[in-house]
Amino acid sequence: MRQVHDRVTVETRGQGLTEITGPLRAWLDRQALRDGLLTLYLRHTSASLLIQENADPDVQRDLEDFLAKLVPENPALYRHTAEGPDDMPAHIKAALTQTHLGIPLQDGRLALGTWQGVYLFEHRHAPQRREVALHLIGS
Amino acid sequence: MRQVHDRVTVETRGQGLTEITGPLRAWLDRQALRDGLLTLYLRHTSASLLIQENADPDVQRDLEDFLAKLVPENPALYRHTAEGPDDMPAHIKAALTQTHLGIPLQDGRLALGTWQGVYLFEHRHAPQRREVALHLIGS
Amino acid sequence: MRQVHDRVTVETRGQGLTEITGPLRAWLDRQALRDGLLTLYLRHTSASLLIQENADPDVQRDLEDFLAKLVPENPALYRHTAEGPDDMPAHIKAALTQTHLGIPLQDGRLALGTWQGVYLFEHRHAPQRREVALHLIGS
Repeated sequence: MRQVHDRVTVETRGQGLTEITGPLRAWLDRQALRDGLLTLYLRHTSASLLIQENADPDVQRDLEDFLAKLVPENPALYRHTAEGPDDMPAHIKAALTQTHLGIPLQDGRLALGTWQGVYLFEHRHAPQRREVALHLIGS
Repeated sequence: MRQVHDRVTVETRGQGLTEITGPLRAWLDRQALRDGLLTLYLRHTSASLLIQENADPDVQRDLEDFLAKLVPENPALYRHTAEGPDDMPAHIKAALTQTHLGIPLQDGRLALGTWQGVYLFEHRHAPQRREVALHLIGS
Repeated sequence: MRQVHDRVTVETRGQGLTEITGPLRAWLDRQALRDGLLTLYLRHTSASLLIQENADPDVQRDLEDFLAKLVPENPALYRHTAEGPDDMPAHIKAALTQTHLGIPLQDGRLALGTWQGVYLFEHRHAPQRREVALHLIGS
């Protein structure tokens, strides 16, 4: 049994989902473990990690629209407005989704379903550099 | 220290919560570990995993009603409608709840509170076969 | 590689966020592990665990207000009302946030971002004693 730690940077292009399944699989291949548990931890509070449908891009846009309507970027609704109209909504969206994910690794492959992708969900409008801590334990 | 991997199938009866605490405990008993961490990972994006109150069945119905109202099954609201009026709402409900759970195992028992059950939350109307990947690490 | 199990009690002062980052770090220091994975598991269904912004207290109040509006404490909306008008909304808020958190430990420090704190999010109005199960695995 052994464990691996790492940090990877994801460049986002502003609000929306960035798929990281590919880079994650490439990273896993380099660790040469067959079975274990992968934990992803996002070191930010205005973005999220998310498992979501990877087939129809409309799913991602519908999800973004739903959250935009649920958590309006209207400064009149919030006290915390100093960092821009999208900052407090970003914290709320992060609270409603995930800061960390745990995905088993079985026989050298992530246990993702056929239609599942791993995404970083940016909630700010400006592009950001986001850091994800990775922890892998197994054999 | 050792680890166990498995996949279990849960048959859902359409939209709503299916408790899986019992089968999960039976599965754990067979692994004969006393202390560790159990991870459940759902291989689908139109259902969720959830820890919820296990005493009053009304809690489950209220939760379902709340989500049904929050994420209406109205195709006019979404781009992604080809898989039926309940599919895009299902993806959104999954994003707002959990795809994975981590529960410590202590002295041979899950660290669940007295009133906690583990549920698979189906968001589609038709019954489905759902696959949950299990990972257990400990001693 | 070894693992540690514990349970800690958090006294809440009624609805709102209680930061537990400090006590958590003190607990970790006593375990003397450098690298691993920390799992926090809340043994209740009317409170949550949450990673959130730790700089501006207004963020916490805005988040509380958002959830109070999203999930009204109005008994007319729910079947489950016997435990008080705040109980069913508490279960829903818990379902929309997190019951467990996984945070990597790297070089003796939690992988928290600069602006991240770990919080217990109480959804009941009355102060409560909440129990968090801790699991740490690593070396």
